[in-house]
Amino acid sequence: MPQYKTPLRDIRFAINEVLDFPDHYARLPNNSSDASPDLVDAIINEGARFAEEVLSPLNAVGDREGCRWQDGAVSTPPGFADAYRQFVDGGWLSLAQETSWGGQGLPPSLGTVINEMLQSANHAWAMYPTLSLGAIDTIAEHGTDEQKQRFLPNLVAGRWSGTMCLTEAHCGSDLGLLRTKAEPQADGSYRISGSKIFISAGEHDLTENIVHLVLARLPDAPEGIKGISLFLVPKFHVQADGHLGERNTVSCGAIEHKMGIHGNATCVLNFDGATGYLIGPPNKGMHCMFTFINESRLGVAQQGQGHTEAAFQGALNYARERLQMRAPKRIRPDRPADPIIAHPDVRRMLLTQKALAEGGRLLNYYCAQQVDMAHRGTDAATREQAQQRLALLTPIAKGFLTEAGIEAANLGIQVLGGHGYISESGMEQIVRDVRITAIYEGTSGIQGLDLLGRKVLASESELLAPFAAEIEAFCDAGQSRLDEFVQPLRHQVRQWLMLSKQIGDAARDNPDEVGAAAFDYLLYSGYTVLAWCWARSADAAQAALDAGSNDIDFYQAKQQTARFYFHRLLPRAQAHAAAIASGAENLMAMAEEQFAY
Amino acid sequence: MPQYKTPLRDIRFAINEVLDFPDHYARLPNNSSDASPDLVDAIINEGARFAEEVLSPLNAVGDREGCRWQDGAVSTPPGFADAYRQFVDGGWLSLAQETSWGGQGLPPSLGTVINEMLQSANHAWAMYPTLSLGAIDTIAEHGTDEQKQRFLPNLVAGRWSGTMCLTEAHCGSDLGLLRTKAEPQADGSYRISGSKIFISAGEHDLTENIVHLVLARLPDAPEGIKGISLFLVPKFHVQADGHLGERNTVSCGAIEHKMGIHGNATCVLNFDGATGYLIGPPNKGMHCMFTFINESRLGVAQQGQGHTEAAFQGALNYARERLQMRAPKRIRPDRPADPIIAHPDVRRMLLTQKALAEGGRLLNYYCAQQVDMAHRGTDAATREQAQQRLALLTPIAKGFLTEAGIEAANLGIQVLGGHGYISESGMEQIVRDVRITAIYEGTSGIQGLDLLGRKVLASESELLAPFAAEIEAFCDAGQSRLDEFVQPLRHQVRQWLMLSKQIGDAARDNPDEVGAAAFDYLLYSGYTVLAWCWARSADAAQAALDAGSNDIDFYQAKQQTARFYFHRLLPRAQAHAAAIASGAENLMAMAEEQFAY
Repeated sequence: MPQYKTPLRDIRFAINEVLDFPDHYARLPNNSSDASPDLVDAIINEGARFAEEVLSPLNAVGDREGCRWQDGAVSTPPGFADAYRQFVDGGWLSLAQETSWGGQGLPPSLGTVINEMLQSANHAWAMYPTLSLGAIDTIAEHGTDEQKQRFLPNLVAGRWSGTMCLTEAHCGSDLGLLRTKAEPQADGSYRISGSKIFISAGEHDLTENIVHLVLARLPDAPEGIKGISLFLVPKFHVQADGHLGERNTVSCGAIEHKMGIHGNATCVLNFDGATGYLIGPPNKGMHCMFTFINESRLGVAQQGQGHTEAAFQGALNYARERLQMRAPKRIRPDRPADPIIAHPDVRRMLLTQKALAEGGRLLNYYCAQQVDMAHRGTDAATREQAQQRLALLTPIAKGFLTEAGIEAANLGIQVLGGHGYISESGMEQIVRDVRITAIYEGTSGIQGLDLLGRKVLASESELLAPFAAEIEAFCDAGQSRLDEFVQPLRHQVRQWLMLSKQIGDAARDNPDEVGAAAFDYLLYSGYTVLAWCWARSADAAQAALDAGSNDIDFYQAKQQTARFYFHRLLPRAQAHAAAIASGAENLMAMAEEQFAY
Repeated sequence: MPQYKTPLRDIRFAINEVLDFPDHYARLPNNSSDASPDLVDAIINEGARFAEEVLSPLNAVGDREGCRWQDGAVSTPPGFADAYRQFVDGGWLSLAQETSWGGQGLPPSLGTVINEMLQSANHAWAMYPTLSLGAIDTIAEHGTDEQKQRFLPNLVAGRWSGTMCLTEAHCGSDLGLLRTKAEPQADGSYRISGSKIFISAGEHDLTENIVHLVLARLPDAPEGIKGISLFLVPKFHVQADGHLGERNTVSCGAIEHKMGIHGNATCVLNFDGATGYLIGPPNKGMHCMFTFINESRLGVAQQGQGHTEAAFQGALNYARERLQMRAPKRIRPDRPADPIIAHPDVRRMLLTQKALAEGGRLLNYYCAQQVDMAHRGTDAATREQAQQRLALLTPIAKGFLTEAGIEAANLGIQVLGGHGYISESGMEQIVRDVRITAIYEGTSGIQGLDLLGRKVLASESELLAPFAAEIEAFCDAGQSRLDEFVQPLRHQVRQWLMLSKQIGDAARDNPDEVGAAAFDYLLYSGYTVLAWCWARSADAAQAALDAGSNDIDFYQAKQQTARFYFHRLLPRAQAHAAAIASGAENLMAMAEEQFAY
């Protein structure tokens, strides 16, 4: 069973040497600037300890035991509740929460670094607190003062947890179809009636109360997506002072049997005239929920990357130990065979995982830095700019890093061969767990449509052009010492702009062109952004080597991995470009009846 | 839960309209020519019924219940034994076996067509009889007359089953390391001692006896792969007349908990001085076992393709029913949303599955046709030519169609979204079951090495050149009416030869170049071969349309799918070509210590 080991060296490289978090934190106002390098270091070390010692050992237990449902109650796997208590007591949940409601006010990006560790160590467990964080932010942004005072302190303290209730049996990607009803009551509350499915952490035994954020329709609401409002529905009623009252009429009707994340309860939630409170304006539920959704999407990108790291670690450990066949250049002549890491094809798999794990880490931390600025930037322009960058990068990070996670997890099995197919190896759990990340919080197809349709084409490249310009500027600055990376990166970015324009032109005549290109455009974009991350990493590594660092192995490995990425993974972008260029006709020409025979 | 529906129309297209099985069968000698079109049709219909009505309903049961091990005995899931009895009683096991031992003497390729159905309907179950077939052929080819008489009649009759025992805990890909010992006894038998793992169908309750084919070392054997011999070790001793005697000292020490194929028992087998019989000459065990291995590899290619078909069917059914969002061109204006098959990105996924399923079917049937000729061709030249073609195509079919199966299965989940992640949908079982196919009988990496190293480079293109010439000849013949497919196919084949030569040249200076290119070369080859399959299909469809067929929808769909394949999947080959061209340096430069940090 793989034991997660936090990649502290690489985390520090990303935040200190590439993204310069110390300087970035110093520019953030208020408490965030308390995030001194020493404090950050201490927090990261302590977070690593928690992930490795508390969460990682529970990962296989959670998978094997799963959650149990009986008479509406859900028990989480053995050890989950205790780990949750340690997590809350250790102050991990409130780390990056605003001080007004009991948080510690540290920067959100620090929470991202910790979250990566939690997700690598135990995805199913980590979903419980992560969902609370989304609920907290949604209430903080869209709730009334009274709602905040009533609900936030206990949520931030971890005594209560949160959920997001969107999906119904007949609608997932298309929330415009949803039917759950909200009837206004004389006291200003609403009676919520309907049934939601696939509600992660919808019922469990970790907290005293659960605060559901529920999309529903008001009686006079317009049809479709514009007639949806957001409601807060607590499991137990909450008095004005925050004390718990009676049980509300929301209940868990069942939990699902799923491919993976067995330790997280995926619930059917029935709302039988449950009391709820409107969050934000009527019929603006989708707008309010997008606070939660966007944050969750970045969280899912971290899950994808976290699994990539975990799969890499498991495969690497095995590849160094397992002796099998002589490599052309034998590295253990004293043993009956060489460790399989000596074989080129095993290296191809390991380097693919490594390039995706470390490149993805940088992308996630870059996004996290933008979140810091979007939420806490000192001036409106900084906040707006960061918001726009996030709008562009969120679907790319979510879509690309989850697809990458699936690939890396499958390579994890493959390196172990038959042993990877056996449950005890832990490698097949990673494949089962990571598989959901390309589905929930918007499938990869939905991310592609969001990126291409809403973020690139609808904005007429207002989001893409400045980012592309920034990459070009990086290329200009690094030209001399990084030619091998800068040249292909520059080509890649220019092709990105060109492809975007071509799709836009084609879509004017045929709206199917957007959907036909979306998924390939998403992956093309992901490979491009990761090329930028790898060029930046190679640049920082070169700077350290030039400065005479002693840590030569680490920096050389960075550059070798960058080289591998540019030579062996980036060319895939051209296959996506070709698919995009082929247009919609080859997808749409076939009549529905012609698919079957 | 998906109900398998045999794609009879497409099977008939492949065997009758593209590969001309009727003419092919007429040319085979002896009993094979009894395979008249009417008989073949009746057998296929009856096989479809068995797969759909008997096996498919047991697929989810097998996954859920799994096998149980107690005190050395294994119980298969409920219904498995009954289905096995029906299978044997129906004459399915003996269908393509030689008449000498009780078989029906029909062509092996007809067995392949039936096997596809079994594998699509229930992979875990289908492994039991499939392994028997491999054992039968191995004994028939390498056994003595006495061994054949003693073991084959009951194996062919399905009263006994077979296994292949290769892997040990410390060696899988590298059988040269194996330690199981064989000591000669005075009576000409051997005492076999050692432990084997990952033995599929190694113990079960379907048959009266199990015949293990076991690799082991003689006392005086040379080290490595050249010191391995093959032994037959029955679970129960067998008297000369075929009657069962006492229990032999081979026992099942445990069964594995695995990601998938829960219905098949994956056993640890302990040989405690068990009595065995040498099959073939001493120290030629690997050569003898390769009869079994090559046949199994083609069987695994059929598993990959079978899962691709099953995943396609599940996704297609859902996509036609599930209403979600308006498509740019609405196809159900009367309903609240369009079925998701109207959306371009869903079509991209379905067409990917369809292109891989139908293209893979043609490749498998083409290989099966070569098996017919290799085993039963009238003259030595025909047999030799077919052997050579199989030597080239076996690793391609095994490697490419299993990787394709993994992709198609994952797309099956993706089309269903969250519903695909739920076990009841049956789609996630396909992902778990198909995952083993890229591992057992030689991982994809091993297939790549076999293809590039042994089949292409070591033969100095003796196997590849004639195949490439045949594709070029097809291109010449089809030039006028198939220009859109012929041109890219011709380019592809020429690039294939060029890449092969480049790798060969590079490998002379650096042997790591073979391993560095192997996996990408395998996939490049697979995309090329499938392009040929699709061009042939489009050609046959055009011929039917030109001849005024009424089945216009079917043939148009063939051509649209070919178009999709050439525009959207074949470009991936260029990413593999780029990776190959990048050479070994980017894999080998990193020191072993530099992978970790």
